[in-house]
Amino acid sequence: MSTVALSSLGTTFSIAEAKETKKNNAEIKNVIFLIGDGMGVSYTSAYRYLKDSPSSKFVDRTELDKYLVGQQMTYPEDPAQNVTDSASAATAMSAGIKTYNNAIAVDNDKTEVKTVLEAAKERGKATGLVATSEITHATPAAFGAHDPSRQNMNGIADDYFDELVNGKHKIDVLLGGGTDLFIRKDRNLVDEFKKDGFSYVTNTDELSKDKNKQVLGLFAERGLPKMLDRTQDVPSLEKMTNSAIDRLNKNKDGFFLMIEGSQIDWAGHDNDIVSAMSEMEDFEKAFKAAIDFAKKDKHTLVVATADHSTGGYSIGANGIYNWFGEPIKAAKRTPDFMANQIANGAGVEETLKKYIDLDLAAKEIQSVKDAASKKEVDIDNAIEKIFDTRSNTGWTTGGHTGEDVPVYAYGPSSERFAGQIDNTDNAKIIFDIIEKGKKPTVINDK
Amino acid sequence: MSTVALSSLGTTFSIAEAKETKKNNAEIKNVIFLIGDGMGVSYTSAYRYLKDSPSSKFVDRTELDKYLVGQQMTYPEDPAQNVTDSASAATAMSAGIKTYNNAIAVDNDKTEVKTVLEAAKERGKATGLVATSEITHATPAAFGAHDPSRQNMNGIADDYFDELVNGKHKIDVLLGGGTDLFIRKDRNLVDEFKKDGFSYVTNTDELSKDKNKQVLGLFAERGLPKMLDRTQDVPSLEKMTNSAIDRLNKNKDGFFLMIEGSQIDWAGHDNDIVSAMSEMEDFEKAFKAAIDFAKKDKHTLVVATADHSTGGYSIGANGIYNWFGEPIKAAKRTPDFMANQIANGAGVEETLKKYIDLDLAAKEIQSVKDAASKKEVDIDNAIEKIFDTRSNTGWTTGGHTGEDVPVYAYGPSSERFAGQIDNTDNAKIIFDIIEKGKKPTVINDK
Repeated sequence: MSTVALSSLGTTFSIAEAKETKKNNAEIKNVIFLIGDGMGVSYTSAYRYLKDSPSSKFVDRTELDKYLVGQQMTYPEDPAQNVTDSASAATAMSAGIKTYNNAIAVDNDKTEVKTVLEAAKERGKATGLVATSEITHATPAAFGAHDPSRQNMNGIADDYFDELVNGKHKIDVLLGGGTDLFIRKDRNLVDEFKKDGFSYVTNTDELSKDKNKQVLGLFAERGLPKMLDRTQDVPSLEKMTNSAIDRLNKNKDGFFLMIEGSQIDWAGHDNDIVSAMSEMEDFEKAFKAAIDFAKKDKHTLVVATADHSTGGYSIGANGIYNWFGEPIKAAKRTPDFMANQIANGAGVEETLKKYIDLDLAAKEIQSVKDAASKKEVDIDNAIEKIFDTRSNTGWTTGGHTGEDVPVYAYGPSSERFAGQIDNTDNAKIIFDIIEKGKKPTVINDK
Repeated sequence: MSTVALSSLGTTFSIAEAKETKKNNAEIKNVIFLIGDGMGVSYTSAYRYLKDSPSSKFVDRTELDKYLVGQQMTYPEDPAQNVTDSASAATAMSAGIKTYNNAIAVDNDKTEVKTVLEAAKERGKATGLVATSEITHATPAAFGAHDPSRQNMNGIADDYFDELVNGKHKIDVLLGGGTDLFIRKDRNLVDEFKKDGFSYVTNTDELSKDKNKQVLGLFAERGLPKMLDRTQDVPSLEKMTNSAIDRLNKNKDGFFLMIEGSQIDWAGHDNDIVSAMSEMEDFEKAFKAAIDFAKKDKHTLVVATADHSTGGYSIGANGIYNWFGEPIKAAKRTPDFMANQIANGAGVEETLKKYIDLDLAAKEIQSVKDAASKKEVDIDNAIEKIFDTRSNTGWTTGGHTGEDVPVYAYGPSSERFAGQIDNTDNAKIIFDIIEKGKKPTVINDK
């Protein structure tokens, strides 16, 4: 075993954990699938730089690092675009098919395709979706709904309630944002879910106290506040993950759970390195919660990956061979938050000094003052530029990019995700694992 | 075995080859280590996009894809920079230590450190260095020389001749560029190598005809012409690779061979996507040559990776969800070549139309005309911009970036390179493989 040989060479790293899983042929009862939306290799690498303790000689590994098994291709099959959006990529990972950008678990003919969550429910497993976006956003939607367009978030919320498997609701745990999508003029899905036995919770405390196996938790009108801007009332992704696992694990036939760190991508679109890194932290903690459970459980497969990368983000820019995490860690709130305060009348210098723990130069403060009379987005951009310049962060786009993204896996069958895979392979392997198990009680449920 | 299960699902991919190697415990006689300088994940992914045949429904895999096993961290241990240069990264991969940028197989105290090439020679293996840069450039230098500074290419050439292992020259095959570094006013190393029994070859034909086990091949005064601009006289990286393997394989105790695709990085520094992709092709063919040999030989470990990424290159830019390889494939020569022609008096429109197989817009031609009166680099930049715009290529820097880079491995012990590794682990594992073999005849050769 290579671990012994390597440690005898005095190296600081251990790939033992990842490699041990290769021998693990335990029966798989539970599958936890985590998606860091937009979490390309620049993000996972930068996060390691950011987290590294200056006191250690070598760069410390992140939780994700320990379980890297390979990378995946992300391209869609879209008539007009060859860089994927989150809907097409999530459909690839949920249903095992390539489809067009914007598609929610439908193929290029707009025919609905079965998802791994539905397959799990067919086999009597409990199921859950957790996200920091609206729970009806593209990524979770592609696991639990079907729609020709990701834009139809009302229809997606309807699907979550209306589409049954074996006569039962197909998703037992729904945690994220989006009260606006569930409590509408035309329909109150919260009442409908409650009528059918689901708990409804709207803050951290309620989430903690409720122990129902079925729960709808909506903690914001749309997406959750960003990690840095959250109050205690809004649960972290880790908190939601643990709550979901606790509930789902009560089911004797196991569970399927999809967890999305939704806003890594949003930060990338905004070219906001402060939020990108704090959302990475939110995701890493949720990943660790899943791993911790799986290590105890021994019958849980955990897979984590991204759907694509975002922003053309680079570690280093403008010819400089350095990237600094310290200026990023100095932000106590996101640039979005600060810009909003300033746009609503707060003083520029006062706001920056209150929320950024750096000795700001007059020029930096002035750059935000210059933007203060413009739109809020200009103020936001000016604040972001301070962090970009201080950290040497580069961006090429407000959209997605097409490079392969990392794949992490732990537990039985984790070796099946190793090497260069395609995003569709995730679903293909999970279908194979789930459908080799207990037979479905109803084959043609759709 | 997962391969069966996967193919039964109708998937088009096969990870069988990569996974089979995990069971391969054959004795390792030869190690071939390939470095795509600057070959980050955007490069390997874009090259797949570029090579894909439009007639196939799914994107075709590259030769590299078949052997992906993980990725590695690239950071240096430099007092002033945390994004690596090629010297520090190559020293990490050749000697297993972190050091400062600019260091050629010396540590932070400027003490010389043993390289895997030297360890191989100690054990009686034949050794070789192949590159498309000067053969004295940072990457090959860190395997075959020692110097506080990569800039001292004369001293590095001297080391190649002067530093002996067990009283013998430590490098048997040297193929690349750099006559200027070997034939100097103060010293003629070509004559010295010839006197000691090495063949000396300077073009493809001479390289093919010569069968000597020891050879110095220098095919340009400095770096080789770029792949797209080469004449038949200048061997491809594949040709040099095959020639090196043929010679080294005559040694009964096996060999160590380092092969560098040097100019992927140079294209990245220049933000030249045309050259980046053609240099990727040059590298892929050399990689395939190594794999083909290893498959027949069965006692050869092949590892391929990058030292860092370059340019902050992104697949997609400016909010557009597409990246096109076709405009890039339309270039018959590099932008450098075309710019040089124009700077030396060739007509702009005539030159562009001669070397670019695209229906160029008047605006595109005008943009180069506008640059024609300026410096050659401005002409080059104007031509590159045509390809960037047509392909939706983004760049953030003329330097390196710090994200992890892919690792590919095939053959016995290839699984030891799997997962998230550090660049130093490459050398640590190879030392372990080589030094577990035949005992050195002289221990303290340095």
